[in-house]
Parts: sequence; C-alpha cells; structure tokens
Amino acid sequence: MRAVDIIRAKRDGQPLSPEAIDTFVRGVSTGAWPDYQIAALLMAIVLRGMTAEETALLTRAMVTSGDRVDLSSLPGIKVGKHSTGGVGDKVSIVLAPLAAACGVIVPKMSGRGLGHTGGTLDKLESIPGFRTALSLEEFLAALAENGCAIMGQTANIAPADKKLYALRDVTATIESIPLISASVMSKKLAEGSDALVLDVKCGHGAFMKSIDEARALARSLVAIGTSAGVRTEALITRMDAPLGRAVGNALEIRECLDTLRGRGPAELTELVVRLATRMMRLAGQATTDDEAAARAREALASGAALARFGRLVARQGGDASLVDDARVLPQARARTPVPAPCSGVVLAMDAEKVGRASMLLGAGRERADAPIDHAAGIVLEVAPGDDVRAGAPLMVLHHNDAPALEEARALAAAAVTIGDHPPVPPPLILDWIHA
Amino acid sequence: MRAVDIIRAKRDGQPLSPEAIDTFVRGVSTGAWPDYQIAALLMAIVLRGMTAEETALLTRAMVTSGDRVDLSSLPGIKVGKHSTGGVGDKVSIVLAPLAAACGVIVPKMSGRGLGHTGGTLDKLESIPGFRTALSLEEFLAALAENGCAIMGQTANIAPADKKLYALRDVTATIESIPLISASVMSKKLAEGSDALVLDVKCGHGAFMKSIDEARALARSLVAIGTSAGVRTEALITRMDAPLGRAVGNALEIRECLDTLRGRGPAELTELVVRLATRMMRLAGQATTDDEAAARAREALASGAALARFGRLVARQGGDASLVDDARVLPQARARTPVPAPCSGVVLAMDAEKVGRASMLLGAGRERADAPIDHAAGIVLEVAPGDDVRAGAPLMVLHHNDAPALEEARALAAAAVTIGDHPPVPPPLILDWIHA
Repeated sequence: MRAVDIIRAKRDGQPLSPEAIDTFVRGVSTGAWPDYQIAALLMAIVLRGMTAEETALLTRAMVTSGDRVDLSSLPGIKVGKHSTGGVGDKVSIVLAPLAAACGVIVPKMSGRGLGHTGGTLDKLESIPGFRTALSLEEFLAALAENGCAIMGQTANIAPADKKLYALRDVTATIESIPLISASVMSKKLAEGSDALVLDVKCGHGAFMKSIDEARALARSLVAIGTSAGVRTEALITRMDAPLGRAVGNALEIRECLDTLRGRGPAELTELVVRLATRMMRLAGQATTDDEAAARAREALASGAALARFGRLVARQGGDASLVDDARVLPQARARTPVPAPCSGVVLAMDAEKVGRASMLLGAGRERADAPIDHAAGIVLEVAPGDDVRAGAPLMVLHHNDAPALEEARALAAAAVTIGDHPPVPPPLILDWIHA
Repeated sequence: MRAVDIIRAKRDGQPLSPEAIDTFVRGVSTGAWPDYQIAALLMAIVLRGMTAEETALLTRAMVTSGDRVDLSSLPGIKVGKHSTGGVGDKVSIVLAPLAAACGVIVPKMSGRGLGHTGGTLDKLESIPGFRTALSLEEFLAALAENGCAIMGQTANIAPADKKLYALRDVTATIESIPLISASVMSKKLAEGSDALVLDVKCGHGAFMKSIDEARALARSLVAIGTSAGVRTEALITRMDAPLGRAVGNALEIRECLDTLRGRGPAELTELVVRLATRMMRLAGQATTDDEAAARAREALASGAALARFGRLVARQGGDASLVDDARVLPQARARTPVPAPCSGVVLAMDAEKVGRASMLLGAGRERADAPIDHAAGIVLEVAPGDDVRAGAPLMVLHHNDAPALEEARALAAAAVTIGDHPPVPPPLILDWIHA
C-alpha cells in the first residue's frame, strides 16, 4: 500500500481501511514514511475527519507501536485517570492516594508541563528526592504495597504518538478530535488499566473552549476505551479560572497537602471527591455514588489519604517529612504582589494568562527540554465572585531570578476582570459521559 | 510570520494575506520551511481552496522566486503557447514554425515527458544533433532570425515551483486548480511573453476529465495571466483518443513533418490551425479569425511552415535534411502489430492506455531521471469511427529491447473498444475561454 494512495483516499473523504491505518502507523514508527507524507495525511485527517471506527483502529495501531504495561500480576481492578490539562490542575496528586485509601488500585502515568499548563511529574519533583523515573518492577511493587504510584511514561509507550505529536505541533494539526483522542487513548490504553476515568477540561483555560467541543472529545475518548474493552467514562469540568489557588510546582504540592488534610479549596476538593467516587464505583468499591463520596470525604478528614500520600512519597524516594512540615519544599526568594487596580468584584480570572505568567516566572517551559524553577509560581488571593479593594493584592508572584518578571506581572494583572455585579458561577461538573 | 500560523489560517478556511503568501514561497525557495510544513499547507490549500486573488499572488511570488526572461530586445508581440498535456500532443512542434511563418514571434519553453504523456523536448531530441539546452543569448538570436525557437526551461525559472511540484507528487496534493494554475502560469509568465494561448486538454486521457473541471482550470489560468498584464486565452480541446496517429518521439516528429506539409491527420491539423489563428490575432497579424486561418492553411500548403521548421532545426544544431528525408530519424528494430480481436467499428481509443503502453515500450519514463528510447512508440492504424476486421492491425508497436513488451501489448489492445454502431464524435474544440 503506497503512502500517496492512503493520503489521497483521506483527502477525498474516504474512511481508511484497517490495513491503511496499520501501514501509516508502522510507517511513522519505522521512519518509512517521510515527515512530509505524515504531515499531508495529518492535515487531510484534520479537515476530513475520521469515523469512530477509524479512530479506534488508529488508537489500537498506536498502542501496538510500543509496549503495553502488564498489570495482571496485581489483584483487583486497576483504575487509571487522565486530565486533558488545565492551569493549577493538581488533581492526580491528591486523587491517587485518596482513591487508593478507599480501596482502588491507581497506576498513574503522568507527563510534564508544556506552555501554560503544568505537569504532574514536575510538581512531584519539587519534593526533595522524589523519583518519577521508576522501573516497571518498582512501579508494580509500589502499587502492590500502597495501591498507588505515579511515574513518567516509559520511553516505549506509544512511540508513534510521540513522533506524531511533535509533527502536529509544527504543522497546525493539533486541533482534531480524532487525532487528540487517539493520542490520549493510545497512551492510556498502553498503561494497562482495567478502567479509566477522564477529566475533560472545558473553558477559556482549556484546549476545548466550548461544551460542544468538550462533549465531542469526551464521547470520542469514551468510545475508544469502550471498544478496546476498557470501561471508560469522562467528567467534563470547568476550566475558566485556575483550579485551586496555587499555580506552580512546589506551591501546588503545598495546596495538595492542604487538600489531603481536608482543608483545600472547596472546588478542588469537590472535583477530587467526584473523581474518586467514579473510580471507586468502577473498581466495585462502593455500590452508590453517595456512599463512595462519603467514604472519600472521610478518608480526607481522617488523615488516611494524607498518610497514603506520605507512603507514596517515601516509596518513590521523596522526603516524606513534608506531610508534617511543608517547609521541606523549595521556596522562592522573592514575592511580588499584583495589586487590584480598582475596587469591585472579581468577574473572571483567565486561567491561560495566569498559566503563562507562571511559566514566565520559571515555573513552566515553552520548549520540552527547558529547565524549570520548582519554587516559582503564583498564589491567587481572590477568585471569581470575591470582592476586592483597590490596591489589595489579587495574587502574589513567587520568583527567583525571573528575567521576564515585568511581562509576567502585566500578564497576571491582565488575567483579572473586575466589575460591579458578582458573576453567576457555572457548575464545576458540566457533564458526565459514559458508555 | 510563523509557518504554523499561516498553515492554521488556511486550515481554518481563511484567505492568505499577500505577506503570508510571500513568506511561504520564500520559505520554499530558501529552504527555511521544512518539507512537512510545506506539505501540510499544500493539503490545506487542496481542501480549502484559494481565491482568484490568492492564486494570482501565489503565482507572482513563484515567478519572482527565480529569473524572468527579458524578451524586450525583440521587436513585436511575443506569443507563448502551453498545453496541459496529452497523449500524442505534438502540437507545439508544428505550431511554432507555422505561427512564425505567419508573422508571430513564438518563444517556446518546453518540458520533458513523464508517465503516460510525452514531452516536446524529448520529441525534438530524437532529431540527430538537436540541442534543447540553449543559452538565453542563443534563444534570443534564434528568435530574432527565425521568429521561433524551442528550448528547455532554464534552471532558474520559478524554482519554487520545481520544489513544490516534487512534494505535491508524493503527498497527493496535485489535484488542486489553484496549485495547478500557479504552477503552470508561474513558468509561463517567467518566460516573458506578451500574450499566451493555452490548450487545456479535457477527457479520459487528460488530467481534467470533465468539461466543468477543464473550464474551471482554464478560467483560473486566464485570470492569472490577465491580472499579470499578459493577454491570455485558452482553448479547451478534447483528449479522449490520442492526438494524431503517432505516439512516441521520432514517430511523432515524422507526423509533424507530414502535418507541416499539409498532409497530417485532419484533427491535428485543425487544432494547429485554430491555435495559430488565435496566436496571429493576439499578435495583431490578422484582423479576423477567418483571415488568420486561411493564412495558416496557406503556410502549410505552400511549404512555408515546413521551411521555417527546417531553419529552426538547423539553428538548434539538428540535421535539417530530415525535412526532405525523414529516414535520418531513428527507427526501431522491431514492429509488433496489435490485431483486432473481432470485426466492428472502433468506439473508443483510450489515450491514457496507449500512452502507458508507449512508455512501457521505452518511449517514456516513469521517473524524471530515466532514459528513453527515441525510436520506440506506437502508430495507430485506426481511430474512433473506423471500421475494423478481426485480425487486422489496430496499431503497430515500434520497439527495440522492450522487457515489458507483453504488458505493453496487453495495455494497447485494452485501449481499443470495438462495437457495432459508429460513435457520434464530440467536437475537437470544446470551449474558448478569454478575458
């Protein structure tokens, strides 16, 4: 099967055969397809789309381009979790030990931050000594002992996706529900869980700006998981303002510790409990959502979730004393408040601008190989709906050497809209998509 | 201006700004744009289209990516000619000396054959000694002396088009009227003529299969030329069966000699006269089409056109004695007739199959750098509408060593459809598109 014939078929709006899809993914993996042919097919897919069946086949071919983690030696139902990414999204770090404390086995493979969104691995690595590069044996042993472990993806998880993603980034072919779905699900399916709970972010600070787009993505993701025999469901959750009050690696770990103590921001706590609820139900650890939610809240209140997090940190080489004293986390030398320009009520807090400001302070990276400053970031002093007085701090920038401080400050200030009448807050959970 | 932003704009269906188009073409010429970004934009153009204005801008940027031939030292109106390509299309070789004999200056730059279609340069090079690689000075001198000259494009005519064409060929992005138009017209405008007559082929053996597609292409080509200040018009002509009876380089030169003597196939003669008529009108050499056509027929009948061809051949190093004795042309060692399988009337002669069979005999090439056999080819013994008797030859294959002889014979036989009732021949000239 010639590459040019496969490209032509998609260009003309035809569905690709299973053989064509396999040929393409093999061509990507082996390098037999030059980048320009891959790019042409990607653009044709963006503009012509793919059926649910094609998308499932593409995902499957991408899974088999690499290794699939074998979790079958662990007894019980393993439930994975994935977020499509937002600003201040520290959910996995609270959720994994919380769900594990409620009887779910949570094998979590995570990524690093890029652009305005942070990454779970970067956040965890702000804990002194914490190792995210586990061997598969270490990962399985940690899961067997603690019920949860968080590691970086091994090099050979869906290698075709890595190659495709790099090309999509520079050819304006990111924005495609079939391609996004196949990318996300190839990695999640390769991780070998029995069930999956997805957090599809929707709003100004998310990749999916409208509820319709978010629903279409969620349905596509759920269909792929289901067709692969993995029970999959998705919550669509709001991402207009940052999630919680902390943005930046060590700052977010502090907020995770607060949340694990039951003293976190209400919205973050609610989201973690809702996701834990669904994970418990999928794992057969509760018979109703109410029962599951009550148990999750109890695990936060009792300290069981926090203790589980301490064991996770210790198991992965980190300084577990942070559970008692967060001062072991790195702290920035300087703090720069961003004052309110006028009095009024906060109408909106633009998550993307806050995320970019935090990146400029050193908390994130524009290119995948750039270093980051674990101590840098932003702590929000207000949220949408809060009253502010002119001159009072809207947020505090935490930074060390930050050559782009002025730019960050301007961006942070521009993130906040102040008006006269309090906004009507939209619900946190916008929809629940399941098979 | 970033490449990815330009690709995204076209992906989303926006017209590209003049600056974006210049950035793209400069990126292609300088190599600043990697092939995968070019390929992604090409696919987006194929699927999203381009306005007439964008197409004109793209063409202009491609012209200025290289040199533009300066013909201003020659007095008079220079009229170029271009065909979109067909099987047995030897028109330029007859037309250039014919129009020159009627007072038109015809600076013709031609290409080589690829796939099932032949190329004017290959045909001329079957004449012993004939040189198509002229310097610009030689070209101008020949034009000044004879009113016509035929050479290959210089290396630096629209180099961006060469690069784009090579990529389009392997990324299924050939089939786009804006891209085809810009490719054709960038080369023709760079050749520096004052006016252009285009022969847009339409039918089974042409790139444009339907009259609607052919009209759309012709209109696009004419609009580009007109917007560049070059008087441009197009005849849409039928290309179902091969044009004339000879297919293959030296065989076609023989047929050209017959036609220049006024003894060529009727349809080929008619087309040449019609095109010469339009060229004479554009050059101000006749006041009515009837007058122009009569003068063209006279130039064939009188031997003036043939004599002009002899001078063209001599001027370009070729053996001009072929005007008196075509036996100086190479001849194949073997002839293999293809017999009619049954008696009846010829309903159709598939030009593409005949072209491919001729290529397999060695007359053409699949890859641009492959050698060709100037003596090989096919002489048709029948045309649509002719009666045949079972066993009588439909055509004769001329060949030397031809490893694919059997395949060529099968393809040639399959090109002919024989039935009971004579077909109604469609007109040769399907439309005339002008500003």
